[in-house]
Amino acid sequence: MAPEEVLQGMGIVLPDPPAPLATYVPAVRAGDLLFLSGILPLREGKLAYEGKLGADVSVEEGYEAAKLTAISALASIKKQLGSLDQVVRVVRMCGHVASAPGFTQQPQVVNGASDFLVEVFGEVGRHARLALGAAELPLNAPIELELIVQAK
Amino acid sequence: MAPEEVLQGMGIVLPDPPAPLATYVPAVRAGDLLFLSGILPLREGKLAYEGKLGADVSVEEGYEAAKLTAISALASIKKQLGSLDQVVRVVRMCGHVASAPGFTQQPQVVNGASDFLVEVFGEVGRHARLALGAAELPLNAPIELELIVQAK
Amino acid sequence: MAPEEVLQGMGIVLPDPPAPLATYVPAVRAGDLLFLSGILPLREGKLAYEGKLGADVSVEEGYEAAKLTAISALASIKKQLGSLDQVVRVVRMCGHVASAPGFTQQPQVVNGASDFLVEVFGEVGRHARLALGAAELPLNAPIELELIVQAK
Repeated sequence: MAPEEVLQGMGIVLPDPPAPLATYVPAVRAGDLLFLSGILPLREGKLAYEGKLGADVSVEEGYEAAKLTAISALASIKKQLGSLDQVVRVVRMCGHVASAPGFTQQPQVVNGASDFLVEVFGEVGRHARLALGAAELPLNAPIELELIVQAK
Repeated sequence: MAPEEVLQGMGIVLPDPPAPLATYVPAVRAGDLLFLSGILPLREGKLAYEGKLGADVSVEEGYEAAKLTAISALASIKKQLGSLDQVVRVVRMCGHVASAPGFTQQPQVVNGASDFLVEVFGEVGRHARLALGAAELPLNAPIELELIVQAK
Repeated sequence: MAPEEVLQGMGIVLPDPPAPLATYVPAVRAGDLLFLSGILPLREGKLAYEGKLGADVSVEEGYEAAKLTAISALASIKKQLGSLDQVVRVVRMCGHVASAPGFTQQPQVVNGASDFLVEVFGEVGRHARLALGAAELPLNAPIELELIVQAK
């Protein structure tokens, strides 16, 4: 099934892709690699989740925040490539998780994005991944995702 | 106008490119992508700014530190490619900002580098970008920049 | 000398490559670039070092942890490419070092991996590099490494 049919079946409508906060662009393509700018868990331009894991945001909420961020990423990829069918492979994802002292479950949080990408793209969605604990993130976001995608 | 003419018009003389602190190299080219090593805000081999945003370094100073770091990056790129005319596109920049607890204005700091790259390269300088809050950075630097550039 | 002969001369037997902790894969190849997932200092599936630099782990231990992590990375690369002879160049390494407040010697820690890669691969092992201080890392690991390798 095509990724956009999967999304439809999940009842997910892609939002407007996030706008850059300054003099950069949402994504740059070099050869067949598309490098996305960092993406936050925004809903209608506002943070849907705020604060740090291990303090303000639970692992379950963080998982949902990661999924929401991945949905934004797909919106951005679709705008760049015209269709999600143009994705050959999700190559690499890095999940930066704002972490209060002692919080070490970054992988469980970033899984929210990884699981979703595999659900939507199947094998094409299986990516190399990093999960990291950031001291702070822009706007007090709990997660920031970065993606590199191989495109047709 | 060529990037090096723009720099001249801005009165900016590129410094000696930063030397690696250990057994790595300033940059590696793979195909048409040039991957730069992390760059700190050094002036004549010493940190021009020191400490964390939200504690020791103001947003305005951080902006200037980011710009200074971007100048170092250009020096490194020029050394690798022979001329800044060889830059096809600034693909991706990641700005790691040393952040005291509660500091969430990383984008405003990293703008110092983004604005400068667009000033020098025009559309070629518009990049995908991440702004992140690091717990600590080498030598107590307030910012470390990473760049991927597409070259002729 | 071939990299695997160098390893043999050093008395190093590559372990089983680390298994992903979730729905991602150890590495993805796009064109001639191999992107590895983040790697922790595991020995037989358990963290060989635990905690933060500047608090629980000394610089010397961190250096050894970085080397151990690089050995895991080679195991992963070998599994992906069939042989370390297929490595054209180690392109980029990013070392995320879990850092207690005030710890700024990330480069000295990450050197444990950089020195080792150059020892094994010679010039082919010289990479672009970042050393960063993370607030927290998965499982309370002191270091997480990321590698991009150019392959035949």
